[in-house]
Amino acid sequence: MPHIITKIQRAAAADVAALSKFGSATIHEAQGRLGAISSKIKPIDRAMSLCGPAFTVQSSPRDNIMLQLAIHFAKAGDVIVVSAGEFAEAGSFGGVLGSACVAKGIAGVVTDAGVRDTAELIALGLPVFSLGISIRGTVKETLGQINKEIVLGGEIVRPGDVIRGDADGLVMVRREDAAEVAVKSAARDEAELGYIAAYKSGRTVIDVCNLEAVLKSKGLTTDL
Amino acid sequence: MPHIITKIQRAAAADVAALSKFGSATIHEAQGRLGAISSKIKPIDRAMSLCGPAFTVQSSPRDNIMLQLAIHFAKAGDVIVVSAGEFAEAGSFGGVLGSACVAKGIAGVVTDAGVRDTAELIALGLPVFSLGISIRGTVKETLGQINKEIVLGGEIVRPGDVIRGDADGLVMVRREDAAEVAVKSAARDEAELGYIAAYKSGRTVIDVCNLEAVLKSKGLTTDL
Amino acid sequence: MPHIITKIQRAAAADVAALSKFGSATIHEAQGRLGAISSKIKPIDRAMSLCGPAFTVQSSPRDNIMLQLAIHFAKAGDVIVVSAGEFAEAGSFGGVLGSACVAKGIAGVVTDAGVRDTAELIALGLPVFSLGISIRGTVKETLGQINKEIVLGGEIVRPGDVIRGDADGLVMVRREDAAEVAVKSAARDEAELGYIAAYKSGRTVIDVCNLEAVLKSKGLTTDL
Amino acid sequence: MPHIITKIQRAAAADVAALSKFGSATIHEAQGRLGAISSKIKPIDRAMSLCGPAFTVQSSPRDNIMLQLAIHFAKAGDVIVVSAGEFAEAGSFGGVLGSACVAKGIAGVVTDAGVRDTAELIALGLPVFSLGISIRGTVKETLGQINKEIVLGGEIVRPGDVIRGDADGLVMVRREDAAEVAVKSAARDEAELGYIAAYKSGRTVIDVCNLEAVLKSKGLTTDL
Amino acid sequence: MPHIITKIQRAAAADVAALSKFGSATIHEAQGRLGAISSKIKPIDRAMSLCGPAFTVQSSPRDNIMLQLAIHFAKAGDVIVVSAGEFAEAGSFGGVLGSACVAKGIAGVVTDAGVRDTAELIALGLPVFSLGISIRGTVKETLGQINKEIVLGGEIVRPGDVIRGDADGLVMVRREDAAEVAVKSAARDEAELGYIAAYKSGRTVIDVCNLEAVLKSKGLTTDL
Amino acid sequence: MPHIITKIQRAAAADVAALSKFGSATIHEAQGRLGAISSKIKPIDRAMSLCGPAFTVQSSPRDNIMLQLAIHFAKAGDVIVVSAGEFAEAGSFGGVLGSACVAKGIAGVVTDAGVRDTAELIALGLPVFSLGISIRGTVKETLGQINKEIVLGGEIVRPGDVIRGDADGLVMVRREDAAEVAVKSAARDEAELGYIAAYKSGRTVIDVCNLEAVLKSKGLTTDL
Repeated sequence: MPHIITKIQRAAAADVAALSKFGSATIHEAQGRLGAISSKIKPIDRAMSLCGPAFTVQSSPRDNIMLQLAIHFAKAGDVIVVSAGEFAEAGSFGGVLGSACVAKGIAGVVTDAGVRDTAELIALGLPVFSLGISIRGTVKETLGQINKEIVLGGEIVRPGDVIRGDADGLVMVRREDAAEVAVKSAARDEAELGYIAAYKSGRTVIDVCNLEAVLKSKGLTTDL
Repeated sequence: MPHIITKIQRAAAADVAALSKFGSATIHEAQGRLGAISSKIKPIDRAMSLCGPAFTVQSSPRDNIMLQLAIHFAKAGDVIVVSAGEFAEAGSFGGVLGSACVAKGIAGVVTDAGVRDTAELIALGLPVFSLGISIRGTVKETLGQINKEIVLGGEIVRPGDVIRGDADGLVMVRREDAAEVAVKSAARDEAELGYIAAYKSGRTVIDVCNLEAVLKSKGLTTDL
Repeated sequence: MPHIITKIQRAAAADVAALSKFGSATIHEAQGRLGAISSKIKPIDRAMSLCGPAFTVQSSPRDNIMLQLAIHFAKAGDVIVVSAGEFAEAGSFGGVLGSACVAKGIAGVVTDAGVRDTAELIALGLPVFSLGISIRGTVKETLGQINKEIVLGGEIVRPGDVIRGDADGLVMVRREDAAEVAVKSAARDEAELGYIAAYKSGRTVIDVCNLEAVLKSKGLTTDL
Repeated sequence: MPHIITKIQRAAAADVAALSKFGSATIHEAQGRLGAISSKIKPIDRAMSLCGPAFTVQSSPRDNIMLQLAIHFAKAGDVIVVSAGEFAEAGSFGGVLGSACVAKGIAGVVTDAGVRDTAELIALGLPVFSLGISIRGTVKETLGQINKEIVLGGEIVRPGDVIRGDADGLVMVRREDAAEVAVKSAARDEAELGYIAAYKSGRTVIDVCNLEAVLKSKGLTTDL
Repeated sequence: MPHIITKIQRAAAADVAALSKFGSATIHEAQGRLGAISSKIKPIDRAMSLCGPAFTVQSSPRDNIMLQLAIHFAKAGDVIVVSAGEFAEAGSFGGVLGSACVAKGIAGVVTDAGVRDTAELIALGLPVFSLGISIRGTVKETLGQINKEIVLGGEIVRPGDVIRGDADGLVMVRREDAAEVAVKSAARDEAELGYIAAYKSGRTVIDVCNLEAVLKSKGLTTDL
Repeated sequence: MPHIITKIQRAAAADVAALSKFGSATIHEAQGRLGAISSKIKPIDRAMSLCGPAFTVQSSPRDNIMLQLAIHFAKAGDVIVVSAGEFAEAGSFGGVLGSACVAKGIAGVVTDAGVRDTAELIALGLPVFSLGISIRGTVKETLGQINKEIVLGGEIVRPGDVIRGDADGLVMVRREDAAEVAVKSAARDEAELGYIAAYKSGRTVIDVCNLEAVLKSKGLTTDL
């Protein structure tokens, strides 16, 4: 049953590049409030940012053999995404494997387990998002799957889908939607700049958000 | 039932200013170990600090329409305090509304939901305390209350009460107690400086804390 | 029953010094994946690092009288380690007691309760590891034990055992194993440098980790 | 500061009796989806059911002296409601105090701490709702308040408000709203019987709930 | 984007019937330790048991309009499976909708939200598995998807896959594997009966499990 | 390093028998509020009750090979107590091993992992206390220790110490204290009967608990 798929269809490089310009929250909204990964999975340093096609890994809790293999088979620019049972007391990734990733040009590592050697990982400049930080060693006993659909933080991630992460967390974009979502994200960013300008110019929330009619229809009263 | 009260009795500005000089832990102790908000609600950046009268909001989980309205009706110097059901997977506040707050001179935002656009909020210099960080969009469907008593992190907060927050967390002071608590906080700070000086001069804990008699009465034994 | 033992057998100073050169994850692996303290107990600032013999404290939740006494009786270089029932909503340690620790040369404080005055503690340069940050005051009512075996984050810690902490968390080394574990840690660090060099030189994971035979024996298949 | 108020305005007995006929979920809906206490507070046996005016207690975590005093001062028919900091590892109530409650005709005990002697409490027939079950003894050191507003499971409960609990959990009704909410609860129960009859007779959800227009307006599509 | 698919390929009725004879743990093991749904999702009564093809629902937290629609479109024998963001403080299903399910012959309801009216649901004899029990009302605002792949308790469930639940929890079997897994489950049950007979006859664990060689190879020592 | 100790000093049978007559909460109080195991570890059925000397097991999370071996080496009357890292998503014990335990006369099984086949275990009449119920299979890869000191639910348990469990949870008694604690437990039970009789006869809490003086000294005021 353990099987490794290496030939996957990745989101187009241009779409990945386009999406990398937007924040994870913007992308999430732009694609219709979809694709948000659980906020329990966070960057180990809030300056970290990543964007790339998912190279997906299904492994057992407290076991990192499939993550090792994923580093072997992934390509430059990939984000390795590991589903390992949400067991935080497992230091499944650290400085040595981080060096291997950097050597190969991996764009980042995302896991629902813990990681360790965080100071080293930060120094390496490798973006890492995890469920927590734990020194506990893992075993290399149980094989799993590489590049099948996985569950990450409550969302289904398919190989090649785009994973975008920043200080606010992670969002997933279907590879076939990536181009369209990038366009919509740009539109949303522009709209937000408009709102911000409106607020700076002193306009009110009810005015900017056009809430008057809505509030009336919902029966809001005030003491004014 | 949804209703907005805009006319509230705020703690006196002088009292707010006086309290802003003390840490949240000091104030909590000074008023008799009262008013501590649950430590689950934290600043999104530990350099953040706020002090101001509470402008309270009761909203539904995953819905931020009442927070928008609160920004509309709050005054410069207010701290907007939102009770939204302790659901962290909700990015109920971000950069755009943050800009609206800054434009109005809001002193800070506190919520028992999540927030997003944290890098932007930090850049704006707006103090924000939340249950977590989440990119997930919220809806604007269900109206609630503004400026009724709310529950925040296990404590009752009334409109106009003082909210003080720093790296250690949040404390609430009843508006009518604010002046007295500021005086007691100053006394406590002074006392603590005395203790620190005593320790620096080499005095022991049992001596400084006057524990000898207490320990004897409680039957403590040692191997000395 | 409350009793204070002051005469304990500490790990040898040379062994403590030797262990202080290695990261907590390295030491954990070097001693056979043992001694990891629960990752819920973290440094209040990730630049913090400590290493020293444990001066152990058993206290009640929300009560810090035994921690005060421990500061009185501990020696320069000791790490005060407190087991207090894993109740995070307790600010059991702060700036005043922190000053007392610094005055005595205590090497650090570790607790499964909360702490407060974190800005002050960071300024003092005292390494502090805790279950969380809370402003809530504690009482001084119930006596406990000093320098008996305690449970910290799921591990048994004996007085005099070595506690080593850094950004990744805490590890415990039996005092009698300290010398040997330091040697093994050095060996592991060296081995890791070898792996890192191998990855930098372009060698693959399967090659470096010698996985070919293992994978065959476990029945792994690929699409290659 | 510790103070006991014994003279409180209780919800009218007739209103309490009327509300006791409806389930907690029905009452919650009938009063506009308000008053739900956190689902973390549960009956220790799902056959338990209570309804009565709240006799409120504010105490410290792991301390039950105020609960003892509440039993002393409460009246037959009261529900003693304790806010004690949501610390579950505290067996703050058990068989002996349960016997005292039964002797006085107390209608039930609700606490956000733990309880113990559950077999005995079930045998006594006293309804008890708690955050958990714990054998850990509590202290009797810190005084608090009786019959001030408290926070229970995220809601503000005032002395004399009605507390209704059953297998599904707890709901709170303001004493002044009790009569009206009982009427609305009866209406809701009747409406629900109508829905149930409709479903039994084979009518569909879209028909019974009148969803056709709503779905069209929201843009729902199907493969039919 | 909201869309309802009604035409799904269900697991064969014979396979569902075959799987219904085995416990969820047995099935999980028989298919290679796969398909276990998070243990956080439990039957509301431990006598409950269900087995049927999944009719999948994707909805928003605290919103049950899609669950209502699923009841409308599902067929007798289906298990309605709802992914709603793991927010337990939502009573998204109760007695009225339960009656609708029973009227249609629905085989059971599984949700990662809360449910209410549990006494009524138990009386109806409808198997219900949920994240918890909550009286809190839900809204009917945001549309979602019916019969797309969903995430339930950390696993991907496709429409038509078999869901089997009992006192121990839930397991999912791919519809195309159902027949084979039923055969393997029977074999496992038989093997377990053999082990049990062996233990009853007095044989030892090391003998029955054939551990001698394994232990020697792993270097186990004893004091015997 | 993995090693099995089979020769342990068990608490005297007469002391175990004596302790078995008292509830876990009574014993906890009688020995000075010591020995309470975390309330997260519960009986899988609240009618379950156990008392016996601990046969301790240290194993890895999600691995039950050491538990199997413990069953092999334990004696009739022993309580097998497993420390496995508090990972609840692991069905580390079930009907087959339960049968092996019953065949040997094991007095019960306690684990900080999950268990499965709960209906079967209840039918077997074997008392089982666990962190939860999970169908997930475990591996048999990593050896550990048998009959060394372990941590269970935050307490240190030594081989041969008495473990007593009932509906309220678990308590541990040092084997050398067992006789004395049984005597004190009897005294406490008798005292509690006295209190209960006092309450039944109509005496008040302040009278029975002799609180008058204490309250005065602590400054309590009332509105009476």
